Amino acid sequence: MSSTVGQVIKCKAAVAWEAGKPLVIEEVEVAPPQAQEVRLKIHYTSLCHTDVYFWEAKGQTPLFPRIFGHEAGGIVESVGEGVTDLAPGDHVLPVFTGECRQCAHCKSPDSNMCDLLRINPDRGVMIGDGQARFSKDGKPIYHFLGTSTFSQYTVVHVGCVAKINPSAPLDKACVVSCGISTGYGACVNVAKPPKGSSVAVFGLGAVGLAAAEGAKASGASRIIGVDLNASRFELAKKFGVTEFVNPADHKKPVQEVIAEMTNGGVDRSIECTGNVKAMISAFECVHDGWGVAVLVGVPNKDDEFKTHPMNFLNERTLKGTFYGNYKPRTDIPGVVEKYLNKELELEKFITHTVPFSDINKAFDLMLKGEGLRCIIKMDD
Amino acid sequence: MSSTVGQVIKCKAAVAWEAGKPLVIEEVEVAPPQAQEVRLKIHYTSLCHTDVYFWEAKGQTPLFPRIFGHEAGGIVESVGEGVTDLAPGDHVLPVFTGECRQCAHCKSPDSNMCDLLRINPDRGVMIGDGQARFSKDGKPIYHFLGTSTFSQYTVVHVGCVAKINPSAPLDKACVVSCGISTGYGACVNVAKPPKGSSVAVFGLGAVGLAAAEGAKASGASRIIGVDLNASRFELAKKFGVTEFVNPADHKKPVQEVIAEMTNGGVDRSIECTGNVKAMISAFECVHDGWGVAVLVGVPNKDDEFKTHPMNFLNERTLKGTFYGNYKPRTDIPGVVEKYLNKELELEKFITHTVPFSDINKAFDLMLKGEGLRCIIKMDD
Ligand SMILES: NC(=O)c1ccc[n+]([C@@H]2O[C@H](COP(=O)([O-])OP(=O)(O)OC[C@H]3O[C@@H](n4cnc5c(N)ncnc54)[C@H](O)[C@@H]3O)[C@@H](O)[C@H]2O)c1
Ligand SMILES: NC(=O)c1ccc[n+]([C@@H]2O[C@H](COP(=O)([O-])OP(=O)(O)OC[C@H]3O[C@@H](n4cnc5c(N)ncnc54)[C@H](O)[C@@H]3O)[C@@H](O)[C@H]2O)c1
Ligand SMILES: [Zn+2]
Ligand SMILES: [Zn+2]
Ligand SMILES: [Zn+2]
Ligand SMILES: [Zn+2]
Repeated sequence: MSSTVGQVIKCKAAVAWEAGKPLVIEEVEVAPPQAQEVRLKIHYTSLCHTDVYFWEAKGQTPLFPRIFGHEAGGIVESVGEGVTDLAPGDHVLPVFTGECRQCAHCKSPDSNMCDLLRINPDRGVMIGDGQARFSKDGKPIYHFLGTSTFSQYTVVHVGCVAKINPSAPLDKACVVSCGISTGYGACVNVAKPPKGSSVAVFGLGAVGLAAAEGAKASGASRIIGVDLNASRFELAKKFGVTEFVNPADHKKPVQEVIAEMTNGGVDRSIECTGNVKAMISAFECVHDGWGVAVLVGVPNKDDEFKTHPMNFLNERTLKGTFYGNYKPRTDIPGVVEKYLNKELELEKFITHTVPFSDINKAFDLMLKGEGLRCIIKMDD
Repeated sequence: MSSTVGQVIKCKAAVAWEAGKPLVIEEVEVAPPQAQEVRLKIHYTSLCHTDVYFWEAKGQTPLFPRIFGHEAGGIVESVGEGVTDLAPGDHVLPVFTGECRQCAHCKSPDSNMCDLLRINPDRGVMIGDGQARFSKDGKPIYHFLGTSTFSQYTVVHVGCVAKINPSAPLDKACVVSCGISTGYGACVNVAKPPKGSSVAVFGLGAVGLAAAEGAKASGASRIIGVDLNASRFELAKKFGVTEFVNPADHKKPVQEVIAEMTNGGVDRSIECTGNVKAMISAFECVHDGWGVAVLVGVPNKDDEFKTHPMNFLNERTLKGTFYGNYKPRTDIPGVVEKYLNKELELEKFITHTVPFSDINKAFDLMLKGEGLRCIIKMDD
């Protein structure tokens, strides 16, 4: 048993002191896990756009100082009272949404919106006692999404931890912890494109390209990538995207452009931008009669989805999903197995790697729209 | 062969000369059916709210003079060139949306939005030659929904005609031609409530109560009826509605009232009002994680469906449907068989009967919200 068990651990964490200001690597204290919690040593984390939104805190509730990060791979350091299905040494992915296994959602085959542990970006403390496990000089630092993986150690509710095959390298598997599962699952679990169908993907970041990858795996015959950043198009070809549309190149709304390209609309569309206009376009570009659109991007607090109700009456379907409808504890180990079986390639999503000390570079890359996932090595 | 074949028929029709003004029974001329058309003798018609909207023409495109009516039962008088699957004497229901059997929609198991013959309330002429078959003193009178059943004879595209079992009495079967199939199908074909689930029905007219009937047949355990007209509640009990909510009785939005009644929302909801606020409530009152809402009511031209995109992200689904997703020629004969087999009771939807000369009474009843369907006997 590690000598740190039951002790406060001092380690490095990247603290966001203020909205939109570079993170500062600080030495912080990480309290031991309480009942139903585990403390993880984070080995690799990556940056997802959701971190950036809440760090910018433009259309979102600001909560600072805070430790961001929710896409990561680590190893259990110690477990709190009552934790029976995880033990020190287990390889795990912390997940931003949880699975209590008791509630109606956890018992439903259709939902992963656990009543207890579903995503809540406005909560900065642990569910058990309403306290933060992080502090610096005695002052608490808020958590983010119950994961806060921009710290060498973090405390997570056991329901938000997926135990994975230890033979999966954590520097790759970490991207399964959010973006890849979200996009891939949004496609294969929610949009479910039939073989031979046409699929539009809005937003060609890691989430969108994972959705494209899911469309390819489902046998879609046309995969139309939509992005305002043309530099994404070359990259996207590796993910099965067959055609590209930049809304900025057209005078008409992009939904009309797509309808013209596809004789009335695509069979499926998946929105992975977080922009409410793209959400509306993604819905309106699906074919009447049978089209299904799926929203994945995280909207701003005061966004409004607007459309003419006739677009629904004409037999279009609109859904949304968190985490690609995967149940984190039950389903995610299987996604990692897909990677180990070479059914799902993770390497191509990883375009950059930086040492922990350079974490702000990962933010710069995402803000500039360069590359896909940037892996942050926590030991460096 | 009837002596009228190939001849112009003079008969009585209820003509709407102006928006919102009482219909006038006139003698009109009905031209013979052209290629792919049939001329029907209408025996019984009933009034659906869709007729009233386009007659009022408040939120809709006005087109006058016009012969309304689309929920009816009749007998084929003669057929035009190329019509092979209908013959004089066949008992039929004309339908406001058609089935060409050739297009992608007709071939899709998911859609009934036929490319050629789908509902188009703004068209007042026949598809074949762009002309009206009705005239008075040489001046054309516009059609409505390709059916115009407020006339003793009417001309309809063969793709908009369902041939039914002649043993079904037309004074009952006529309601299958729109409202009952629409509501029942919206429930059993689109919302598909699981056994034991909770269902909210917005609008307790014939369409909404047919949806409730579908929920009952599906084994729903709670059926919550929502209407602004409290007089509908007593009537609704016969259709399996177990609880009632009048939005006017509450200060909170009705979606919140329903969420409180159902521990977070209903499993399914079906909107049958045509009011855009009710559409939004019907969507927002379904449970996150698995809830499905279905829109059926016909919106105004400039209505806007608005909601926070997070309501979708929380794993709710929204769909719309015309005609309960039934394909008129293929599926409707089977709905009539359900009636003949006593699996679907039609009598309870029929609360009034008037002679053709009193057709304006049917409008009065609907505007006052009295009763459900009013049958109009075309021979009187
Ligand atoms: N629902 C979930 O469970 C879940 C999980 C993870 C991420 N997300 C969200 O998914 C979205 C994508 O995340 P990511 O990490 O791939 O981000 P990313 O920044 O790497 O990619 C987003 C892409 O969208 C493009 N884009 C932005 N606005 C656009 C518009 N109007 N039209 C077309 N393209 C547009 C950008 O140029 C960028 O290429 C974000 O909103 C993120 O918050 C949701
Ligand atoms: N999609 C289709 O294929 C299709 C087919 C037929 C009818 N319709 C539409 O279905 C709707 C119902 O038709 P119907 O013939 O049963 O009409 P109806 O007038 O008999 O019933 C409508 C009911 O909705 C209630 N209502 C109105 N606004 C409401 C609100 N804001 N909240 C709660 N209840 C409200 C009314 O009091 C009334 O009882 C109409 O909009 C009609 O145009 C659609
Ligand atoms: Zn993420
Ligand atoms: Zn749960
Ligand atoms: Zn109708
Ligand atoms: Zn067709």
